[in-house]
Amino acid sequence: MDLEAVATVPLPFAAWTQSRQQRIEAVLDRALAAVPGIPAELTDAMRYATLGGGKRVRPLLAYAAGELTQAGPDAVDGVAAAVEMIHAYSLVHDDLPCMDDDVLRRGKPTCHVAYGEAIALLAGDALQAQAFAVLQTTRLADPAGACRLLAQAAGPAGMAGGQALDLLHVGKAMTLPALETMHRLKTGALIRAAILLGAQCGRAAHGTEAALATFARSMGLAFQVVDDVLDVEGSAASLGKTAGKDAASRKPTYVSLLGLAAAKAHAQALREEARAALAPFGARARRLHEIADWIICRDR
Amino acid sequence: MDLEAVATVPLPFAAWTQSRQQRIEAVLDRALAAVPGIPAELTDAMRYATLGGGKRVRPLLAYAAGELTQAGPDAVDGVAAAVEMIHAYSLVHDDLPCMDDDVLRRGKPTCHVAYGEAIALLAGDALQAQAFAVLQTTRLADPAGACRLLAQAAGPAGMAGGQALDLLHVGKAMTLPALETMHRLKTGALIRAAILLGAQCGRAAHGTEAALATFARSMGLAFQVVDDVLDVEGSAASLGKTAGKDAASRKPTYVSLLGLAAAKAHAQALREEARAALAPFGARARRLHEIADWIICRDR
Repeated sequence: MDLEAVATVPLPFAAWTQSRQQRIEAVLDRALAAVPGIPAELTDAMRYATLGGGKRVRPLLAYAAGELTQAGPDAVDGVAAAVEMIHAYSLVHDDLPCMDDDVLRRGKPTCHVAYGEAIALLAGDALQAQAFAVLQTTRLADPAGACRLLAQAAGPAGMAGGQALDLLHVGKAMTLPALETMHRLKTGALIRAAILLGAQCGRAAHGTEAALATFARSMGLAFQVVDDVLDVEGSAASLGKTAGKDAASRKPTYVSLLGLAAAKAHAQALREEARAALAPFGARARRLHEIADWIICRDR
Repeated sequence: MDLEAVATVPLPFAAWTQSRQQRIEAVLDRALAAVPGIPAELTDAMRYATLGGGKRVRPLLAYAAGELTQAGPDAVDGVAAAVEMIHAYSLVHDDLPCMDDDVLRRGKPTCHVAYGEAIALLAGDALQAQAFAVLQTTRLADPAGACRLLAQAAGPAGMAGGQALDLLHVGKAMTLPALETMHRLKTGALIRAAILLGAQCGRAAHGTEAALATFARSMGLAFQVVDDVLDVEGSAASLGKTAGKDAASRKPTYVSLLGLAAAKAHAQALREEARAALAPFGARARRLHEIADWIICRDR
């Protein structure tokens, strides 16, 4: 029995989050089944990089945006899994020795430490491809447009472009607008895709996309500002990854540009922008509000 | 003026091939334009890896399959570019030090030699994403199905799975069926996608897909057998890549399993299978026949 369907009051946020996290875990588990005749190393590495960890921010945003347009979770599963698989592949490649050369991720050895560089490279490649297959397991009003949106979010004008900006700025001075551009592409583009694709799973009214894009932009930047703050304030134990590594690798951050207090204030300002963008939706935006608060007020 | 449109007899194959190669070059050039605000290194590396080289076998197959279903080249451009970008990205990642560690490709330094490993990794990632964006610039009867087909061809049950099989068999004994499975995935899956997607750009009659899948399978394997033969018989100068590297890296090949003469005979047998699969199409399969002959009888 779906408790939510018969409830007269919405689930508390923690219970909603947990139910969707469990749901996406099952969806990803099915989408990443072993393939007969294919080396288990590859599919194991894909599963290792994707399952059993992370806050699932992007899937949660997709489900929440779906609720806003009256799409039930079953109508959003494909989109939610697709954005998470793109995210997971980007972490695998980002951690490789030729990129960030990181050994710890979500409290576990990174994929290439566990499976070797070659298999990690292929697992990331295969995860990106699989994301586009999984996207199209969801019935979408405009499947071609959805494919383009995810591709643009992942490609040179999105996440990959942002990573190139990041890479080429290590150890160099960066203005605040340049830092925002980098994050808007590196993490913001996929967050935006998660929200817009989630909304596309339901019946989006005129103006919904523009308002959600504004929300996504503020939320995405806030997410990154908080990340930078936590990189300074957090510990490896609570973060599940190496703390202080931005400073150690001399990457420009909101904290290095603004200072800690101003970075925190900036996050709160972005939070207000995000809230304002959701105002037209009233109670239908409940989960998106809750996720924004959760992201911006988290301590890990 | 489109000379072909007014011609009463079809273009000779060499002229057709040249016109389609020029066409796909222009399509790829447009699809890989610089992105404002994105480091030129990234888009330059994507262009370097994709433009100005290669036989364009996959786009040619897509255009030829499109002709079979009455799709003009303009209706096939997106599909042709998408499969070529997937192919180009796979070469970039395949050449990386953690994979084949190759320094020469199409007579030029490999992408990571020219741009560094990190940018080459990102350029490959971005090319894969861009392929899915470009795919959906073509009007397809079933855009969701086309996206799934390309994704499956590139993913763990296709190219990436084949590369994992290849990687994990270096220096190990391999049976002929295992070698065929590896090639069916590593190169065959994308060749199949090029042909089936090209055919989907037009009006495919019942049974067309099954016959073309059979053609693709034989053609794809023949392509690989000939590659193995040329790796033994060719020189770096004529191949534009390092010759004899399969033997040097102790990879199983058709030549190492069958011997040179039997490998050549196997290629001819596959050629006959491919021809037989096209029989129902008569003259509409002219270009596919010509491509198969060209691939199997090439000396570089």
